[in-house]
Amino acid sequence: MSTQDMTIDQVTQWWSTAISDISPGVIRLRGYPIQQLIQHVSFTDTIWLMLRGELPDPRQSALLERALVAAVDHGPQAPSIAAARMAATCGVGLNSAVATGVGLLGDVHGGAGQQCMQVLTDIRDRLERSAAPLADAVAEALAEIRAAGRYVPGFGHRFHPRDPRRDPLMDALTDAVKNGIVDATFQDIGLEIERQLATGRPRPVPMNIDGATAIIYSSLGFAPELGRGLFVLSRSIGILAHAWEEKEGGRRIKGPIPPPLLAAYHGAAMRDVTTGR
Amino acid sequence: MSTQDMTIDQVTQWWSTAISDISPGVIRLRGYPIQQLIQHVSFTDTIWLMLRGELPDPRQSALLERALVAAVDHGPQAPSIAAARMAATCGVGLNSAVATGVGLLGDVHGGAGQQCMQVLTDIRDRLERSAAPLADAVAEALAEIRAAGRYVPGFGHRFHPRDPRRDPLMDALTDAVKNGIVDATFQDIGLEIERQLATGRPRPVPMNIDGATAIIYSSLGFAPELGRGLFVLSRSIGILAHAWEEKEGGRRIKGPIPPPLLAAYHGAAMRDVTTGR
Amino acid sequence: MSTQDMTIDQVTQWWSTAISDISPGVIRLRGYPIQQLIQHVSFTDTIWLMLRGELPDPRQSALLERALVAAVDHGPQAPSIAAARMAATCGVGLNSAVATGVGLLGDVHGGAGQQCMQVLTDIRDRLERSAAPLADAVAEALAEIRAAGRYVPGFGHRFHPRDPRRDPLMDALTDAVKNGIVDATFQDIGLEIERQLATGRPRPVPMNIDGATAIIYSSLGFAPELGRGLFVLSRSIGILAHAWEEKEGGRRIKGPIPPPLLAAYHGAAMRDVTTGR
Amino acid sequence: MSTQDMTIDQVTQWWSTAISDISPGVIRLRGYPIQQLIQHVSFTDTIWLMLRGELPDPRQSALLERALVAAVDHGPQAPSIAAARMAATCGVGLNSAVATGVGLLGDVHGGAGQQCMQVLTDIRDRLERSAAPLADAVAEALAEIRAAGRYVPGFGHRFHPRDPRRDPLMDALTDAVKNGIVDATFQDIGLEIERQLATGRPRPVPMNIDGATAIIYSSLGFAPELGRGLFVLSRSIGILAHAWEEKEGGRRIKGPIPPPLLAAYHGAAMRDVTTGR
Repeated sequence: MSTQDMTIDQVTQWWSTAISDISPGVIRLRGYPIQQLIQHVSFTDTIWLMLRGELPDPRQSALLERALVAAVDHGPQAPSIAAARMAATCGVGLNSAVATGVGLLGDVHGGAGQQCMQVLTDIRDRLERSAAPLADAVAEALAEIRAAGRYVPGFGHRFHPRDPRRDPLMDALTDAVKNGIVDATFQDIGLEIERQLATGRPRPVPMNIDGATAIIYSSLGFAPELGRGLFVLSRSIGILAHAWEEKEGGRRIKGPIPPPLLAAYHGAAMRDVTTGR
Repeated sequence: MSTQDMTIDQVTQWWSTAISDISPGVIRLRGYPIQQLIQHVSFTDTIWLMLRGELPDPRQSALLERALVAAVDHGPQAPSIAAARMAATCGVGLNSAVATGVGLLGDVHGGAGQQCMQVLTDIRDRLERSAAPLADAVAEALAEIRAAGRYVPGFGHRFHPRDPRRDPLMDALTDAVKNGIVDATFQDIGLEIERQLATGRPRPVPMNIDGATAIIYSSLGFAPELGRGLFVLSRSIGILAHAWEEKEGGRRIKGPIPPPLLAAYHGAAMRDVTTGR
Repeated sequence: MSTQDMTIDQVTQWWSTAISDISPGVIRLRGYPIQQLIQHVSFTDTIWLMLRGELPDPRQSALLERALVAAVDHGPQAPSIAAARMAATCGVGLNSAVATGVGLLGDVHGGAGQQCMQVLTDIRDRLERSAAPLADAVAEALAEIRAAGRYVPGFGHRFHPRDPRRDPLMDALTDAVKNGIVDATFQDIGLEIERQLATGRPRPVPMNIDGATAIIYSSLGFAPELGRGLFVLSRSIGILAHAWEEKEGGRRIKGPIPPPLLAAYHGAAMRDVTTGR
Repeated sequence: MSTQDMTIDQVTQWWSTAISDISPGVIRLRGYPIQQLIQHVSFTDTIWLMLRGELPDPRQSALLERALVAAVDHGPQAPSIAAARMAATCGVGLNSAVATGVGLLGDVHGGAGQQCMQVLTDIRDRLERSAAPLADAVAEALAEIRAAGRYVPGFGHRFHPRDPRRDPLMDALTDAVKNGIVDATFQDIGLEIERQLATGRPRPVPMNIDGATAIIYSSLGFAPELGRGLFVLSRSIGILAHAWEEKEGGRRIKGPIPPPLLAAYHGAAMRDVTTGR
């Protein structure tokens, strides 16, 4: 198609969305007037509505809320939090400090939940394809992960022998299963992974926050990639709180270690540009 | 102090925080064990706790929630949303797409609420300093803003003749005032600003979403800078939803206008490097 | 190791680097005093020194410079440029506008050069492992890429029938090969890929800017991942220039399409929160 | 204007630029064919061309190059570098690591050069408005800055008693003045500021890198805001080099201090959600 044939309609179609319907005096999200949403709907409901297109059942929303609360913060040792705190001392707005922290929630720092959801989905698919019992499907998947030299995402923690967020999240999920809010499949898979990872080891490798939230998000029907998205929304709270604490403190240009400490140096000895030696 | 005199304690103090208390097996936020927060506390409560240090009264939390829901999205014409959607087509994680959008909520695109809170606070301070009636304090402040050639942040909208989010937010605030949850001061100031801006003009300049949320956040005791922070948390929902919609759509390297359209060019005519002509 | 056993030395080692040696009154980069670098060394030499650890031969530096110049800009249709221009209207510093644009140079928008370098390296490794002729090694690699349903990165352009940057870059590389500055291997591989991609097609799929710079960066010994890094440095020039042009223009909150155009909407029809219909 | 009246021409005008003229087979920057730029023009010349619209005199370009080389890096204590290194361990592309670092070059961490250029311009304007001698115009400006409780940007360094980059930059500028490349005005102003800041103090407050580059960029005719832009381009080299060093090192999720160190905690003691105590 040539430029001459383009219409204004094609330009507005280029940005077409099924999320927000905006015109003068009108804002509707997923079809619902914003006035009604403000009056009747919780923040967590709104998250669900925006990402999924429909309002959740209140008990689905309650389960989602447990997972969102669980992951808001894990302290300034995390690079995302540390970077946001440093940003807050560099003369940028709080939005830039939050963007800095969120930007660090990449595949390694923020992706374990998403990767765990992919493993859970893969095992669920194996179960659906064959009549194999759960234990076999899990064993098969774990063997493949180990053969590839990888860790099982969502299990084990370098710091917590047992992640304190695991039990309350699994308890909430168990209730939801009992009440018929969600199916037990993903919890069963997750618990079987945990069981098998504990077998024959001196130290178990229990489910961590990424694993527990992955099981909940999968049970609630979220796509794996949205696992990362939900973690981003949750951890943004901690990032903002830490950036704000640092900003209120008033320090300027905060580096990673206190002055007068200096990074060590292990490179080339002093040399001369003109001689190269 | 020299490097030799530094202690490990000074290093861990450099990152000291009053937000999160982390040790093996333990996560406490603002003193509360994470297990309890997961079980008992809503996502909005958690936002309040993390930013303010104390849990809110449920009715304070309900009012905060109205404001957070109101600002989640205003469609892909907004540069923050458009940039996040484009980012989602460039081969980065959803976290980077969200960071892109949040990064654009700067002083001009995301700062009106914060600036309105500063105006509200300034007028509140005038009222506290003198016995002047509300109308005079507001008139004085507006005159100063106009004299500086600036707009009154939080009022007027280039698009909505009347912002559909204004009324439900003011209604919720009126209820909260009636129920003694918050003081009426900031609402009174905001409504007086709106009244004065409407006087003697062909077209009123009614309160917009930034003004309405600014009044609520100020009434709830948030610092102006956190007005931007809360807007960031709220708008992150829309940014994520739009980035995800675009990612699911599967387009790659989406530019601002559809191909084969090309940006116009109004610069130097073709010339030769060797001759400069 | 427990916290009590940590030493200050271990803290400064945590940030140890072989790049910059800083102490009061002293700045040395890769061992060279900054005074000397300022006096004797070009900006492109400095890029090489910082990334590779040694100063380049002037003719290596000249070849690198050709590639850096070639990729500085391709106009505001590119999402990275468009996003940076929008950022510049949102009330953030020029650094944030540049960060926005650079952040969009992800695997899809900024990664083709890096991916092409990986293909080139893979074919070079095949040649080193076996006595197979070049044409066979290339054919084998291309067959694998096609079998995986992927495109060959660095070849073909949706816009330019023949990328105007290809010939001057290949000419510069040919000179460098003739003068013994670099080995011909990667150029031979690249030209053979181009030849095979042109065979038996109605329309050839010629080398594009990503392919041409990938061949040069590989010939100069850069790691594939630095291909993306060098592209980032180069494109930052265009990102900054466009952000600055937009900032000088003075527009505020620039969206992707001009007002009063609105994004189209294809979602749910208006419905009621209380009834769901 | 209503949507119906918009034309495609207005859409392409929305993105109109004077920088890049792109059409199939054609790329011209500021009017010059990209083929010619690749063959004839240095990277530093290209930076000038893109930002200023015209090619520089080779001696202007040489002076700009000195300043660009001088500011590439100051080690991992800088929050921009530390944040980029941490980002590189979080599973994001090198472009995201660079964006993280650049994002931190805000008003406080990256803005001193820009602010110094504003001071220099302000003093130049005073000189042009009146017949006052240089010393008086400088004294007046410094008095105003001190009265506002601010520091003079570009002078003094918390770390270097004398910034090793000062002398080679001032020497290069002196040569350029002698050769008639630039006017002496901004250097005279800068040196007079330095002289007055040294008077009557136990410790002088000599020009630092931000001051020295600000004088050069102002002498070359760059706008103050581009001072930040040029610093961003320069420091991007160090940011990329450090991010790459960290990525090659292979560490994952690098925090600001080495494990098992934990941030100190100074907040509320453990308490109970249900009782608040």
